Amino acid sequence: MIVLPAQGLRELGARIYAALGSPEEKAMFVAETLVEANLTGHDSHGVHYFVHYSRRIREGFIKPEAEPRVEKETASSAMIDGRWGFGQVTAMRTMEVAVEKARDSVVAAVGAYNCNHIGRIGYYTEWAAKQDMIGLLYVNVGNPSASVYNGMGRAFGTNPLSVSVPTGSETPFLVDYATSVVAHGKVSVARAKHERIPRHWARDKYGRETDDPNALYDGGWLLPFGLYKGYGLQLVTELLGAVLTGSRTGRDEAKGAPSSNGVFAIAINPEGFVGANAFKEKTGWLLRKVKEIEPVAGERVLVPGEPEKESKARRLAEGIPLPEETWGQIVELCEELGVDHQIA
Amino acid sequence: MIVLPAQGLRELGARIYAALGSPEEKAMFVAETLVEANLTGHDSHGVHYFVHYSRRIREGFIKPEAEPRVEKETASSAMIDGRWGFGQVTAMRTMEVAVEKARDSVVAAVGAYNCNHIGRIGYYTEWAAKQDMIGLLYVNVGNPSASVYNGMGRAFGTNPLSVSVPTGSETPFLVDYATSVVAHGKVSVARAKHERIPRHWARDKYGRETDDPNALYDGGWLLPFGLYKGYGLQLVTELLGAVLTGSRTGRDEAKGAPSSNGVFAIAINPEGFVGANAFKEKTGWLLRKVKEIEPVAGERVLVPGEPEKESKARRLAEGIPLPEETWGQIVELCEELGVDHQIA
Repeated sequence: MIVLPAQGLRELGARIYAALGSPEEKAMFVAETLVEANLTGHDSHGVHYFVHYSRRIREGFIKPEAEPRVEKETASSAMIDGRWGFGQVTAMRTMEVAVEKARDSVVAAVGAYNCNHIGRIGYYTEWAAKQDMIGLLYVNVGNPSASVYNGMGRAFGTNPLSVSVPTGSETPFLVDYATSVVAHGKVSVARAKHERIPRHWARDKYGRETDDPNALYDGGWLLPFGLYKGYGLQLVTELLGAVLTGSRTGRDEAKGAPSSNGVFAIAINPEGFVGANAFKEKTGWLLRKVKEIEPVAGERVLVPGEPEKESKARRLAEGIPLPEETWGQIVELCEELGVDHQIA
Repeated sequence: MIVLPAQGLRELGARIYAALGSPEEKAMFVAETLVEANLTGHDSHGVHYFVHYSRRIREGFIKPEAEPRVEKETASSAMIDGRWGFGQVTAMRTMEVAVEKARDSVVAAVGAYNCNHIGRIGYYTEWAAKQDMIGLLYVNVGNPSASVYNGMGRAFGTNPLSVSVPTGSETPFLVDYATSVVAHGKVSVARAKHERIPRHWARDKYGRETDDPNALYDGGWLLPFGLYKGYGLQLVTELLGAVLTGSRTGRDEAKGAPSSNGVFAIAINPEGFVGANAFKEKTGWLLRKVKEIEPVAGERVLVPGEPEKESKARRLAEGIPLPEETWGQIVELCEELGVDHQIA
């Protein structure tokens, strides 16, 4: 492991994307979201995408200068054409438009299509919560890696959802997860470390239980979380994220394109219900009550968003640990692009 | 078991509630929702509530004549005071207002408070889907029966959520479940049949795994489904259903009142996105593709809503089976009220 400071990594990412033709503001923003994923402990969505997205820019799949465009709207809704720019830029615009509209209309829903990989989706809902809005996000992942409940083979992507709620403290309540038992990245981490995986995560290509992470890469698949209940949400994210926005579903042909995201955001303004202050006050009280609950032996009771907060505090102080291999790939990319990889 | 026809049960329920002072239309509607729960296979939410609700009317908790009232609204949102009428009447009005507003505004969100037990929540979202709207419902259950993830003791209710989507066929896509592993009613069914329960459903009062349904009634608790993922949704339903609407949370004191529901509904009009016809067409196609998936050995691949559809077809044809004990309680109630319990 090599340990690097967040700010240096942000600046490095911005230099890389700028060298590939990205406008400076977009380059900085995308780098910021990726570093934030590492800070919050979600390394599977972190700075190794410096390399992935660079390849996609060079292949023409990400058009770094493209500005998302609102194609259709009402006072409380919009459809956004991401125009195959950075997925992060499209997702952020999607949530911004939802939050702007919800200020007056109390609730707003915005969908986005022609959208590249948007990264860690909690970034956008948490941003909404910081604007005193409840943010919901349903995202389909174009390339299938998870089966349906009781089904053989890959049917849909890991299809994440996220909900964030303002709490009146600096830590918003944040739910953010794949509707598969785990995100794809957790299996690749286990594979890299030559570890076994729990037997309820995945199936091999014959549909058998397995604890071998390699089985996923040899025709296997992830399972939906929580049996038929998570399966229901896997399909909800597919229907809202992809079908409602006109994005590519897991059952459409990919035609060689990398995985895209269909994005559906809802912003809710508590002012239209009990009122923003009353909502935040009671939410804060409720979550403190949850923290007072006695844990089962050997465990902790955590509020959704707390693990991310703890990781961020630690990594801001101590730096972000990266596998040598990941850092090596970033350095190699910098050398190809003539970008200074030194971090201050 | 005694087997009775749906229409006769509806009429019987309507007679019972009318005898207790309910206006006829409300009496018929509440009876209809309860019979629909039995028809769709959800006996835990069925006609045994003829007896429960009658007791609550007589105790003054349900005011059968009360009409829900919109207290605050915008073009795309509303807050509804249920005024402690039938929960079903309040929940239906909540979804109706959301659907009406979403026709023009594309999305609408409506919260309800002072609301009694609303029964099977899929009733309302499925109704929205039949109006060509996507319906979402988040409901908190005032009386706690489920723990938080890794926590000891009862913290929150079974807090269900539901999503229904129009499919262009007569069977809407319907997700409708408790955020606990199972609804409370499934444990009481096992207890009545003297059966064991799976060990991942509940804990005894010491926090130990148990397969004894009686343990739940002796200080035990249900677990959230899908570990921390279901726990996140348990809290989301609590924050949207209760905190946002100003309803009683699982951490507030009940003060002797029966369990109430806080209700939060969202209606989304596909017309504001890809368009209603395109949405239904692609949804129908996608769900047919799901049905084509090869099942794992010995299982079936079902689309959410399919088990309910199958049960309804069967029970409309063959009648609704009720335990002798349930039917006996209904007959006893009828005798007390001087209501004819004969079913045509």
